[in-house]
Amino acid sequence: MRVIKYPPNKDWEILAKRPEIAREELDTIVSEVIENVKNNKDQALLEYAKKFDKVNLTSLSVSENEISEAITLVSDELKSAINLAKNNIEKFHASQKINVEIIETTPGVQCWRKSLPIEKVGLYIPGGSAPLFSTILMLGVPAKLVGCKEIILCSPPNKEGNIHPAILYTANLVGITKIYKVGGAQAIASMAYGTGSVPQTYKIFGPGNQYVTKAKELVQLNGVAIDMPAGPSEVLIIADETSNPAFVAADLLSQAEHGTDSQVILLSDNEQVIEASIKEIAKQLAELPRVDIATLALKNSKAIVLNTITDCINFSNQYAPEHLILATEKTDDWLEDITNAGSVFIGNYSCESAGDYASGTNHTLPTNGYAKNYSGVSLDSFVKKITFQKLSKQGIQNIGPAIELMAEAEELFAHKNAVTLRLKQIDNV
Amino acid sequence: MRVIKYPPNKDWEILAKRPEIAREELDTIVSEVIENVKNNKDQALLEYAKKFDKVNLTSLSVSENEISEAITLVSDELKSAINLAKNNIEKFHASQKINVEIIETTPGVQCWRKSLPIEKVGLYIPGGSAPLFSTILMLGVPAKLVGCKEIILCSPPNKEGNIHPAILYTANLVGITKIYKVGGAQAIASMAYGTGSVPQTYKIFGPGNQYVTKAKELVQLNGVAIDMPAGPSEVLIIADETSNPAFVAADLLSQAEHGTDSQVILLSDNEQVIEASIKEIAKQLAELPRVDIATLALKNSKAIVLNTITDCINFSNQYAPEHLILATEKTDDWLEDITNAGSVFIGNYSCESAGDYASGTNHTLPTNGYAKNYSGVSLDSFVKKITFQKLSKQGIQNIGPAIELMAEAEELFAHKNAVTLRLKQIDNV
Repeated sequence: MRVIKYPPNKDWEILAKRPEIAREELDTIVSEVIENVKNNKDQALLEYAKKFDKVNLTSLSVSENEISEAITLVSDELKSAINLAKNNIEKFHASQKINVEIIETTPGVQCWRKSLPIEKVGLYIPGGSAPLFSTILMLGVPAKLVGCKEIILCSPPNKEGNIHPAILYTANLVGITKIYKVGGAQAIASMAYGTGSVPQTYKIFGPGNQYVTKAKELVQLNGVAIDMPAGPSEVLIIADETSNPAFVAADLLSQAEHGTDSQVILLSDNEQVIEASIKEIAKQLAELPRVDIATLALKNSKAIVLNTITDCINFSNQYAPEHLILATEKTDDWLEDITNAGSVFIGNYSCESAGDYASGTNHTLPTNGYAKNYSGVSLDSFVKKITFQKLSKQGIQNIGPAIELMAEAEELFAHKNAVTLRLKQIDNV
Repeated sequence: MRVIKYPPNKDWEILAKRPEIAREELDTIVSEVIENVKNNKDQALLEYAKKFDKVNLTSLSVSENEISEAITLVSDELKSAINLAKNNIEKFHASQKINVEIIETTPGVQCWRKSLPIEKVGLYIPGGSAPLFSTILMLGVPAKLVGCKEIILCSPPNKEGNIHPAILYTANLVGITKIYKVGGAQAIASMAYGTGSVPQTYKIFGPGNQYVTKAKELVQLNGVAIDMPAGPSEVLIIADETSNPAFVAADLLSQAEHGTDSQVILLSDNEQVIEASIKEIAKQLAELPRVDIATLALKNSKAIVLNTITDCINFSNQYAPEHLILATEKTDDWLEDITNAGSVFIGNYSCESAGDYASGTNHTLPTNGYAKNYSGVSLDSFVKKITFQKLSKQGIQNIGPAIELMAEAEELFAHKNAVTLRLKQIDNV
């Protein structure tokens, strides 16, 4: 971990920069996958399963029996834990519902806005050694809460042609039963265009490798919505002298273990805090199974000493971290000054893991500085908001003349005429 | 206008399809513009002004004097009309504010969500013969309401190097004074990357031609957010026997006059309604200054007779129109059945022009079927929502064990350890 002491303000921009992500090179490979899925549908998916997942699938969809069996394979302890997390996520996301409110902007002119579920959504859950079932809660719970009609899930099968029991258990728990054994860019293409087995959806959610990310970018250009642009996961911790170095180190490491490209930043107004935290990192790192990944991630990471906590907050706002941890006893004074962050963890007992799993907030958050202009996943992500307006005779009489003038000034005479005809008709009655 | 009578359900999908938009061909041209602006900044903009706008600019930014002068050039009548519209838009958008609500998901675990302004936003207003000042209200009013710190506006200058007074008046009225004489793809590039004169922004809004659209797509791939994907404007009208054919025709024409690629669809359960409306179109069309544009747009347009109004609603949901007009006396029964639309105009006095200018709803709406998965512009478009969580000792004790189990099952042991350390420390005190 590189330590930087009191960098001048002019250096902040460079210090807050993420490593460049090469974006272009995958275009051709991923475009070919998408075209192949569009043209050859299920057949293409079965061939990709053979090629990439090393399995001959007889069916792309997970059967009811497979789900029933998975339920028996998950321990009761883990089931309770998942249930606790689900309840908290449900409670917090349910509070995000917006009631319809009719606003009379001018007498006779009523306007309102209604949230309606995006009818068909697709969730992608990556494969790999560990089953990322927590992401199913984060995406499936709000999708169910708003009432999306069709919620499907794609995840790559293992060599035996199975999806991990914890994934099937969690999906079934939140009410998702249309589950498909499809991974990678081909999964994104399937959910964007439909393949026969995999239904077409209107919005695609979920994390993935660079092929998945590129596929999401490409289908977005064709009108399929996506949750948000992707980048490596990251945490920024602001620690003062009341922080606990062991906690700070553990939180930095829980970000660093995500991947070698993880971004980890520690800010403090106190050199001792940084020294102590770095010592703790060395101590804890040795014990971790994912020590190699975390070690590489830490190489790109920075500990920066600044003059004041206010400077730390300002630097953080410029960096716009996915996760921001305020590691200190008294934090409430700072909260008003935070302008850019995905999710904020307040005080010494609010570790990032809490939000990753069970506090109730969503863990699908903007990375790579996107917290400046994107929100994390929420109930909003699964709805579109339709506006309505209803004008009475009095309403069009009140605002009609203004519309006529504005339409004329914009040289849109048919727009004007639509009002003129109505005003005349009212006058004639 | 093509009339289609009682098409079988299986034909609806094709009838609801928009013409394909060719997307690839502009990549090279627009990428070059973006690169040039990135590298040569203001100098590139001055050269593009010479080349495309036929003007030698001495300054890219609009001066205070130019704004003062513009204010004197707009008639008092038009000023009043713009003010009325602004008030209604303000009233409706202000009602969209979300209050912070602290949710205790588990005792000791508090979560909340706060909307914060996107700090820097850029608005694009196209040039052409008519000044589209109404779009400034639709974008500038919500940006101001949420408190975006920096709101800038780009619009191409005319041959004399000026921007239309109505644009400058409206921008100044909503509080936008950083206005730049830049048009086309180069305007989008400027607001995405900054040029010296034009500041960099985090999110770009506004309509434009195919170069502008392509530039928005390309900068979006580099992390700059955009309002929504673009497509030709469109209206779908559902008219029953209580509709007024002259009103229906006027509303169809006010969409058709937008551009030759405008999409206009009329649905009814009554053949006479369609016949009468088409007759009215012919009558009104002849009187319009933009008769040529409207005539071409009508060539691609469809009038479809269906068996019932329920069928019309179902077809409309499949089409997902930008604007949906329910042209009939009694409409409230249908409202619950609408699932996909940008903005809905209810009853014979709610013409599309009302929403385009002054009812209070936003006129920046999803086209091209995107109403299935995107919302129109609203207050939401100018904020990002940050989540917060604060756990007390009791809070981490309550959810900590569940987090440990879940992290272990996902093989993320540093995540687990961040909790374990805290639980141990609490036990030891």
